[in-house]
This record gives sequence, C-alpha cells and structure tokens, in this order.
Amino acid sequence: MTPTARVSLNLTRHRGGLTEAERVRKLGQRGAVLWLTGLSGSGKSTVAYALERMLVGRGKHAAVLDGDNLRFGLNKDAALLKESSGYGEAAARRFGLGFSPEDRAENIRRIGEVANLLARNNVIAVTAFVSPYRTDRDAARSLASPGRFFEIFVAAPLEVCERRDPKGLYRKARDGKIKDFTGLSAPYERPLHPELTLHTERESPEESAQSVIAFLRAKGIV
Amino acid sequence: MTPTARVSLNLTRHRGGLTEAERVRKLGQRGAVLWLTGLSGSGKSTVAYALERMLVGRGKHAAVLDGDNLRFGLNKDAALLKESSGYGEAAARRFGLGFSPEDRAENIRRIGEVANLLARNNVIAVTAFVSPYRTDRDAARSLASPGRFFEIFVAAPLEVCERRDPKGLYRKARDGKIKDFTGLSAPYERPLHPELTLHTERESPEESAQSVIAFLRAKGIV
Repeated sequence: MTPTARVSLNLTRHRGGLTEAERVRKLGQRGAVLWLTGLSGSGKSTVAYALERMLVGRGKHAAVLDGDNLRFGLNKDAALLKESSGYGEAAARRFGLGFSPEDRAENIRRIGEVANLLARNNVIAVTAFVSPYRTDRDAARSLASPGRFFEIFVAAPLEVCERRDPKGLYRKARDGKIKDFTGLSAPYERPLHPELTLHTERESPEESAQSVIAFLRAKGIV
Repeated sequence: MTPTARVSLNLTRHRGGLTEAERVRKLGQRGAVLWLTGLSGSGKSTVAYALERMLVGRGKHAAVLDGDNLRFGLNKDAALLKESSGYGEAAARRFGLGFSPEDRAENIRRIGEVANLLARNNVIAVTAFVSPYRTDRDAARSLASPGRFFEIFVAAPLEVCERRDPKGLYRKARDGKIKDFTGLSAPYERPLHPELTLHTERESPEESAQSVIAFLRAKGIV
C-alpha cells in the first residue's frame, strides 16, 4: 500500500454536534465568502476593510483575507519560511509560495479553503486578491456551499488603477522590473457572471461597502 | 534579483480600520487559540466539539479545526489534490501533505496560521491534533498574540486510549500496518507547562468542556 493510500484509509470525517440552523440562530448570522477580484489598485483591500468595519460595527463577525497579509502567514514564501518558521532549504522551497502559475494556484486554493472554513463557521470572509484566472475563482467557488459564495468584481478600469498605482507596481512593471504583471503583461480574465460589480472609479469605498451590505441583506446573510 | 527577493519587496502590510478593543466591544468576545494535544483516542475531537457546542450555544463564535477534517481541505494529500483540485502530478506531490516529519511540520504550521487568523478575528479556535512534538506546538504558540494561546493537554494514559481505539488505529499499528504510530512506535512529547490538563479517563467530554469554559472565563476570553 502506498503511503498516500494509507493516509486516506486512516481518516474518517468528523461531525460537529450543531446543525447549521442552530448555529445561525445562536450566532445571529450566516457565513459567506465574498470573493473580491480586480486589478491591482482597483480598491479591493480598501473596500474589504471598509466592509469589515461596517459589519463588525453592527456586531457581525467578518474577516478580511488579503494577499499582502496572507503572504506573511499561511502563504509565506521560501525566504520567510526559513527565516521565521525555521524551515530547511528543501522544505522552504517545497512549501514556500512565489508567483509562478503553480504557486499562484496553490495560493488561491489555500485562501479558498480558509475562506470556506470561516464561512462554515458563520463568519463573513472577505477576500481581496487580484485572482486573475477564472479557473482559480471557480475552484474557490466550488469549495463553498451553494449560495454562500459571491464573486464581487471590483471593476475600476486599467487606466484608473494605473493612475492610482498605490504601491508603485505599475511603474515598476512598465520599467520592466516586474514581469508578468496582471493587466499589462499578464491577462486579467474578467468575471463572466459576478454576483455584484463595484464601480470603484466613481464611488467611494464606503459607498461600495454599503452596496455589498445591501446585497448581503437581500440574500439573507445579515 | 531573485524571484523570492522580489516577492518580499512588493508586499506591504495592510492594516484594518478597527482597533482590537473596538472589535471586542462590538463582538462580545476575544479570540483565542485552544490547542488540544494528546494521544490518538484521548478524546481531543470529542471534547473540542462538546466545547464548540457549549460556546455557540452561548452565542460565542467558535470553530473546531481537527486533523481528520483539515486533511480533506487545506491540508489535503497528493491524491486528493489531483482528484478534487485538478492538480497535476508535480504540483500534487509538492503541496500535498503526507505523514513524513516535514509534512507533519507543514501540516501543523498551516493549522497554527489558520487558528491564529481565526483568533485575530475574535473567534475561539479549538484545534484537535495529536501534535506530538513540542517544537511544533511551540511554533504554533509563537504565532499567536501573547496570552491568546492555550495549550490544553488531553491526558488520558496510553492504556486507556489503546483500549478505546475508536478508529482501530492502535490495532493496525500493533499489527504492523501503520509505522511510526504516536505512543507506540513514535514519541509523544508531553507538554511541559500546559495551561490546562484534562483527565478524560475519568471525566466526561462535557465535564472536560466545562472546565475549559471555566478557564476561559477566568482568562477574560468569554
């Protein structure tokens, strides 16, 4: 028997003692995954934190997952795994995440799993990642319970995002210092059927967050 | 510049808009990591779910992370990554987790990161893993904010655990069908200074859970 086969055989699924309906009644909210997608500089993180502030202000548990923060934790790169987790060279190379297509897919997979875990535990998970590929976003959607995953397109046009350039990344990409930069030298696949679209080029982060909250109300999440 | 160096330079830490005190006031609870450790069959998962049931029953957000469940999600093995996540052979081998020391360390690291993320978002994360090595448990502790990580030793003696053998694993290990089985052919390093010890050989899961809740009250978590 291969080690892998043995793994699967030794595991049994464990069930908690509370039904979904009991959890919702006791906690006063459903869980959900709000998957914000859009170009760098479109305002994903800003809207996500405005939304978190509003939801928590109403006593609702919400949690932002964003690329910049997760890259220092769950999805560290090899250098950080060596430096702060004491990993050896081989383990750090194996598990550390960079920006290759394979690494990006694993980055998004781990985030999707964590967002789904939060949602299953009645937390509103707000993810803020470029997540340029439809196949990755669909994979994240497929993890969630039906009706609990909402793809939210943060739709500021490229010109607006590049003008803002809050982290100076567009400039670096134009100068050739970053390869494969989404929107310039790497594709961004627009959502085909997002549950909601936010026009952050003409509304404030608070206005965008308000429209997400109106949407969550309509869906019976809060 | 290496790709790894570029990663670190392109990232900036992102801050939410709410202080910890505001979150606690609005949500009515602090977050914490309750790290249950003990032999297979000691009752970790049973106590964890009893505790979750009690906490949620009081309107407190709690989430159980247990090995059997995470192994089907965030910490899937290579076979499951291929089967359910559409990974190719190389990516599945690289990111899939088995039971080698390196894989176990990464398993625990990811769990520690997720538990800490839950705790930072005011959820009481209850982890239920054998987690036999002190160094791995200390690594999980080091991720959490001071005073938010509680190591709880589920201390049923080996003879009791082997007699229970709820998954038939001790039998398989005695028959040589599982190598490196914690407590028999692989070490279990007892906690040196656990914040709490549960004697599940002589108290019911509900009694154990009650003593955890009394502990959380004393610490000001709930």
